[in-house]
This record gives sequence, structure tokens and C-alpha cells, in this order.
Amino acid sequence: MSESSATVERVMVAEEPTTFVTRSVPYIQIELGGIPGDRHYGLLRPADSRQKIYPRGVLIANRRQISIVSKEECECIANRLDLPEIKPEWLGANIIISGFDKLTELHQGARLIFPDGTGLICEGENLPCIGPGRVIEKIYNESGLSQKFVPAAKKLRGIVCSVEREGRISKGDTIAFL
Amino acid sequence: MSESSATVERVMVAEEPTTFVTRSVPYIQIELGGIPGDRHYGLLRPADSRQKIYPRGVLIANRRQISIVSKEECECIANRLDLPEIKPEWLGANIIISGFDKLTELHQGARLIFPDGTGLICEGENLPCIGPGRVIEKIYNESGLSQKFVPAAKKLRGIVCSVEREGRISKGDTIAFL
Repeated sequence: MSESSATVERVMVAEEPTTFVTRSVPYIQIELGGIPGDRHYGLLRPADSRQKIYPRGVLIANRRQISIVSKEECECIANRLDLPEIKPEWLGANIIISGFDKLTELHQGARLIFPDGTGLICEGENLPCIGPGRVIEKIYNESGLSQKFVPAAKKLRGIVCSVEREGRISKGDTIAFL
Repeated sequence: MSESSATVERVMVAEEPTTFVTRSVPYIQIELGGIPGDRHYGLLRPADSRQKIYPRGVLIANRRQISIVSKEECECIANRLDLPEIKPEWLGANIIISGFDKLTELHQGARLIFPDGTGLICEGENLPCIGPGRVIEKIYNESGLSQKFVPAAKKLRGIVCSVEREGRISKGDTIAFL
């Protein structure tokens, strides 16, 4: 049934309350609410500027728990910005994959199935915002980078996913895209 | 922002453990897990024949908590079967609406917003199965109706929804489709 596959290069969590930047761990445990301890964990979250149909701040179903980027698309953003690299940590990614073409264009509703049966649902493109741009500007100490990040990352910034089946995702896992 | 609207004719729950048939109530309280006390309430549910990517019976995210049918489409099924009526209770519907064309063809991801701000996400067509057909066959005491129901109800059997924002849905509410 698998249309294609990819490899999990690394898994990461945002456990530090003051930043969305993630750090690598050997595996991530996936619950219905996301990754326990991660910044985006929760069954509910406050509506923000992306959900204009709800008043800002009211609690709505959280379907943006897991952020995934691809190694190839991060390289492409770096090329566009003339930088040696864009680390997925700086984008707040939880999973970095390789070997899958055009991850960011994956359609809403696609299923990502991991070796132990863990299942994620693609909820669509993670629209670029200025936060990671500010991190990158600070790291490279190059004024104006934060503004350049948003257009450079368009259609390359990866996807957000919600959880369909709980389990564990580890470095080296193969993902089947269904 | 509203593309179109509809009226809530009645709201119903399946509280009786032995049947999926619903009964009318003045309002339904909507939580993230669905309608408390209803047969389909729950954040998780066992995978069934519709989710072939998971072993049957493993727990997965429940996105089929709320079932909605339209008065017009129920009339259309009745016409196709040469019956005086098809009651939404027999289909296990939680909400019956009127004034919305081709409800069953509503796209996955459409939002249904109710007067108090309650928000549901359309998860797609509720594929006809033989259960309601058996109920209808028994009620009309007409042999063979259960088999005829499935093809007659295709693209007319309504949709299933998950909950995006909690609240209350009452008879007479206007729904905005976004």
C-alpha cells in the first residue's frame, strides 16, 4: 500500500520553556496529545492568527503537535539564503527525514506509518513565520536574515502532523507514506 | 467568510447500548471526545475495516464522533427505495440539517460553525453500511431492503465530523460552513 518511504534522520523535542528550538534525543514517545514535555504537546491549544474563524486565544483541537522537516528542503532554504546550513533545530522541528521529495507539498490527510505502527496524519504545510528567521539571524549575525527567511522557506519549511496511533519514533526508522 | 449556511432541524444521541439508533434531545453538549453518553464518544476508538492501514481493533484517534445527515438527502434515499420516509434516527445521526445542498459531498476539512462558536471539522462521507438497512427492513417489514439500502444511500448518507471547538448545539441553530 506504501506509495513511498523516507528515513528518520533525527528526532527532537522542544523542552526548554523559553524557546521553540529543539534538541536531539534517541527517540520520541508519541501520545494522542503529541510528545510529552514538548512545547506543542496538548489535546487543545489556543487559536492563533492561522485560525481566523475562532476568536484568538479560545481553546481548539490541537492538530499541530508534531513538526517534520526534510534534510533536502533545509539544504534548499540554506542555498536560497546563501548560508552554509539551516539546522532543523532552528525551525523547531521534531523529526528530520531524508529521501522524500517535496515533503512540504504532502497533501493534508496523508498518513505516515512508522515501524512499530505509530501513525501520524499530515495536517499540511507549516507556514513560515518570522520566529525561526530571528534565530537564524542571531546565529549568523547577519542583519535582515529574519525578513528573508519567510519567502525563502516557502514550500520548504516542512509539515505539521497530528497523531492517529500512539507509539515510538526513533532515529533510523523507515516511514511509509500512505 | 461564510460560503453557505444550514439549519439544525433536530439533535440526537445514541445512549442505548444495544443499538446505534438515536433519539431526539433539546441540545447536545459537544466535548473534544464527542457527545458524552453517545455511542461514538471517545478520543480513541478501535480501528475497523475502514482503516486498513492499522490492525483491526488497535486504538486510533477517533474522528468520527458526530454524524450529520440532511433532511433533503434522507428524502432522496426514501424516494430511491420507494418508501414514505427514512428517519435520521435509523441512520444513527446526531444532527439533522436542512437547507444545505449535497451535504454528503462536503469536502474533508470544511468547518461547521454554530451560533455559540462550537466548531466541527468535516471528516468526509459516512459510507453506507448494512446496519441501518437492517433497521429499515425490520421497520417496513420488507425483505431485501437492507441490501438495497447501501447502493440507494451512496453519496446521500451524510458526513462524519470531529470536534474542533467545544460547545453546545441546539435545535434551530444556524450553521455557517467555512
